[in-house]
Amino acid sequence: MSTAISPLAPQHVPEMPDIAGVRLATAAAGIRYADRTDVLLAMFEPGTTVAGVFTRSKCPSAPVEWCRTHLKPGKARALVVNSGNANAFTGKTGRDACKFTAQIAASAIGCKPADIFLASTGVIGEPLKAQAFEGVMEEMVAGARGGDFLPAARAIMTTDTFPKVATATAKIGKTKVTINGIAKGAGMIAPDMATMLSFVFTDAPLGARALQTLLSDGVADSFNAVTIDGDTSTSDTLMAFATGAAAAHGAPRINNAADPRLKGFRAAFTAVLADLAEQVARDGEGARKLVEIKVEGARSKGSARRIAMSIANSPLVKTAIAGEDANWGRVVMAVGKAGEPADRDRLSIWFNGIRVAHRGARDPAYDENVVSQAMKSQTIALKVALGLGQGADRVLTCDLTKEYVAINGDYRS
Amino acid sequence: MSTAISPLAPQHVPEMPDIAGVRLATAAAGIRYADRTDVLLAMFEPGTTVAGVFTRSKCPSAPVEWCRTHLKPGKARALVVNSGNANAFTGKTGRDACKFTAQIAASAIGCKPADIFLASTGVIGEPLKAQAFEGVMEEMVAGARGGDFLPAARAIMTTDTFPKVATATAKIGKTKVTINGIAKGAGMIAPDMATMLSFVFTDAPLGARALQTLLSDGVADSFNAVTIDGDTSTSDTLMAFATGAAAAHGAPRINNAADPRLKGFRAAFTAVLADLAEQVARDGEGARKLVEIKVEGARSKGSARRIAMSIANSPLVKTAIAGEDANWGRVVMAVGKAGEPADRDRLSIWFNGIRVAHRGARDPAYDENVVSQAMKSQTIALKVALGLGQGADRVLTCDLTKEYVAINGDYRS
Repeated sequence: MSTAISPLAPQHVPEMPDIAGVRLATAAAGIRYADRTDVLLAMFEPGTTVAGVFTRSKCPSAPVEWCRTHLKPGKARALVVNSGNANAFTGKTGRDACKFTAQIAASAIGCKPADIFLASTGVIGEPLKAQAFEGVMEEMVAGARGGDFLPAARAIMTTDTFPKVATATAKIGKTKVTINGIAKGAGMIAPDMATMLSFVFTDAPLGARALQTLLSDGVADSFNAVTIDGDTSTSDTLMAFATGAAAAHGAPRINNAADPRLKGFRAAFTAVLADLAEQVARDGEGARKLVEIKVEGARSKGSARRIAMSIANSPLVKTAIAGEDANWGRVVMAVGKAGEPADRDRLSIWFNGIRVAHRGARDPAYDENVVSQAMKSQTIALKVALGLGQGADRVLTCDLTKEYVAINGDYRS
Repeated sequence: MSTAISPLAPQHVPEMPDIAGVRLATAAAGIRYADRTDVLLAMFEPGTTVAGVFTRSKCPSAPVEWCRTHLKPGKARALVVNSGNANAFTGKTGRDACKFTAQIAASAIGCKPADIFLASTGVIGEPLKAQAFEGVMEEMVAGARGGDFLPAARAIMTTDTFPKVATATAKIGKTKVTINGIAKGAGMIAPDMATMLSFVFTDAPLGARALQTLLSDGVADSFNAVTIDGDTSTSDTLMAFATGAAAAHGAPRINNAADPRLKGFRAAFTAVLADLAEQVARDGEGARKLVEIKVEGARSKGSARRIAMSIANSPLVKTAIAGEDANWGRVVMAVGKAGEPADRDRLSIWFNGIRVAHRGARDPAYDENVVSQAMKSQTIALKVALGLGQGADRVLTCDLTKEYVAINGDYRS
C-alpha cells in the first residue's frame, strides 16, 4: 500500500449527511491489514430496493456471482464489503465463503441470506477466511448507525490513498431526497464495467427496475469512461440502494425511470457517479496528473470513445504525460492503432488548450516553451479533433509513473 | 536512450556472412543523435525482388505510405533507413522528404526513385530534414560493400540497447542460399503488425509474390506474436529482399511459395524472423525478464492468441513479473478481460513449470518458497490451460519496470 496521499486528491471532502433507512458499521476483522478497518456493513430498512452493474470479466469473483444471482427480486437488507481479499479465483471455497458470510449477516439481522449483498476487494486467488467476520458481525449489527459514510469509504480502501465520498440532493415532487456514494479504486480500472467497488445510497422511493435503469444509464459516462491501466477487475461492482424513507415526507414512489418527476434526481444521481469516478481517476495508482481526453469530429460517439480509450490506455502516451512531454506523435500513434476511421492529415491535437498539431503536422505556431510550461499542470486536458463527423466523447485517466510500477511490483508479496 | 545493455541480450552474436547482391553502407547524418551512425543504405543488384508487411495503424508514417505505393512491381534497387526521426505525422513535408530521399538515392545509384524503399524510426511529429542525406549519399553509394550487417543493425537503433542480427542457411535444390536479417525495437511494439523495423536479405532467386507469401506467413508467429506495451507504431515495417544471386550457383528460380523445393528455405526464413522477433522482446524498453506466454485448451488458436495477448499486455501482470511475484490472480483477471470463452473453474496456471493454480483455485501443493525462487529467473514461462478445447498459441513479451517509465518519460525532451 501507498502511504502518501495522491497529490490529485480533492481539496474538499464534503460533509456526508444521513440517509434515512441506512445504518453503517465498520470493523477490523484482520483479513489482511493490521491496525485498520476492513469490513463494512450497511444495513437497510425493509422495503429497500437494489440495483447493480458488475464486471464483464469472464472470470468474475465469487461475490460478483453471488450478487448477480440474488439481484433479480430487487430487495436488499444489507451489504457486507471487505477489503484485503477479493475472494476471486477461489473455487468452491470462495462460493462457500459467500454463503457463510451471508448466513451470519442474515442471522444477526434477522432476514434471508438472499437479501444480503456482498463485495470483496484485495488480493486475488487466496482463500478468504470468512470466519473472521463471525467475530465482528454481531457487534457491527448492534452498533450500526447513520451518517458514517467517510469511515465506510475508508474501510473498503486497498491501494487507495484517500477515501472517496460524494453527496447530492434533489427533489422528487416537493420532497428533498439525498444521494450518498462511496467508492474505492485504484488500479485494475478499465471499462467493462469499470468501477472497482462503489455503492450509492438514497432515501428516494424508487422501484428496483427504475433504479437499475438509472444506474445502467449513469455508468456509461462516469465509471465506464475512466481507465487507469486498461485492466479489468474480476470484482468490479457498482450497486445502488434506495430505502424509500423519503416517502414518509411525501416523496411519491416511482417505478419507471422515464418518469419526468425523476429529472432532477437523475441529474443528481449521475453527478454523484461522475464525482466518484473522477475521484477514482484522481487516485490511480501512482498518479501525478489527472488526464481528461476529449475526442471530437469522429464518425460517431462510439468511435470517439474507442479512440479516446486507445489514447487513455497507451503506456507511451501516459509515460509522456508523466514526463511532462506534450508528445503528440504518440497521440497520433494511439489514434492510429484504435482501428477507427481517422485521417492523419485532418488531425488536430491540443494540450491544455494549446494547439500543438494542426491538419496532420506540427502547428506552425508551436512554441516548445509555452507547451512545456502548460504540461507542468496537475490536470492535463488532451483534445483530439478528427475532422470527420460529429461524434464526440470524453474519458478520464491518469499518467503512468514509476510509482505505478513500484506499487504493483510488490503489492502481493 | 538507455545506455546499459539489456540483461536479456543474446550471449552470442552470430558471424554475419555476405549476401551476394547486397552491399551496405552506414553514415552519420546528424538527424538527431551525435557521435553515431543514423543512416543505412542497402544496395541491391538489378533483378532483386521485394516484399513487405507494414503497420495496420490508420495513421502510418510517410515512409510506410511510400513503400506501400511502390511495392506492387516487386522490384528493389536500394533501401534507405534512418533512425532519430520517424517522419510520421509530418504532412506534406513528410511526403516531400520521402520523395527527396528517394530521388537523391536513385540519382547516386542510377535507377528510378520508385525502386528505392524507405524506412524511418525515431521521434514522431517532427519534420525530417532529408537534406541531411544529401551530404552522405554519394559517399555511401561509393563505399557500400557486403557483409557489414552488424554496423547496419547498429545504424537503425533508437532506444535499443543492442543491435539485432540473425542468419541462417538453407538449400534450394542443391544450392546453398543464405538469409540474413536485422531488426530494431524496442518500445511501441504490438501486433498489427508488430515489428518496428526489420529487414531480411537473401540471395535466393525468388519471385516477388513467393517472397511476399513467405513473409506474410512468417510474420504471424514471429513479429505478430511479440508485444512490449500494446502500442502499435505508425512506422512498423518488415521487408524482405531477394537478390537471386544464388541462381549463378545453380539455385532454381521459384515463383510459387507452395513449391516443395522451398520447404527448407521456408523453415530457415521463418527461423530468422522468429530469432529477430525474440531479440526485440529481449530488448523491450526497461525489460529485465523475457516472458513467454503459452495458452492451451482454448476454443481455437485465434482465441488462444487473444487471451495470450491480453495477458501479455496487462500492466498488472507485467509489473507483478517485474516484482518476481507469481501473481496468478492477475493472470486470471487478464484471461477474464480478454472476452474469449473461459471457465474460471477449469483454469490451471503454471510459472516456469510449477503449477500454482489448478481448476480455479490455488494449487493444493502450492509452496511460496519454491515459486518465489523460480520467479527470480531471467526467463519466465507462463502457461495457462483453459480446459475447453484444442486451441493453443504462444506470444513473447517482457516485464514492465520502472525503467520503462523512465525511458518513455523523457525520450523526446
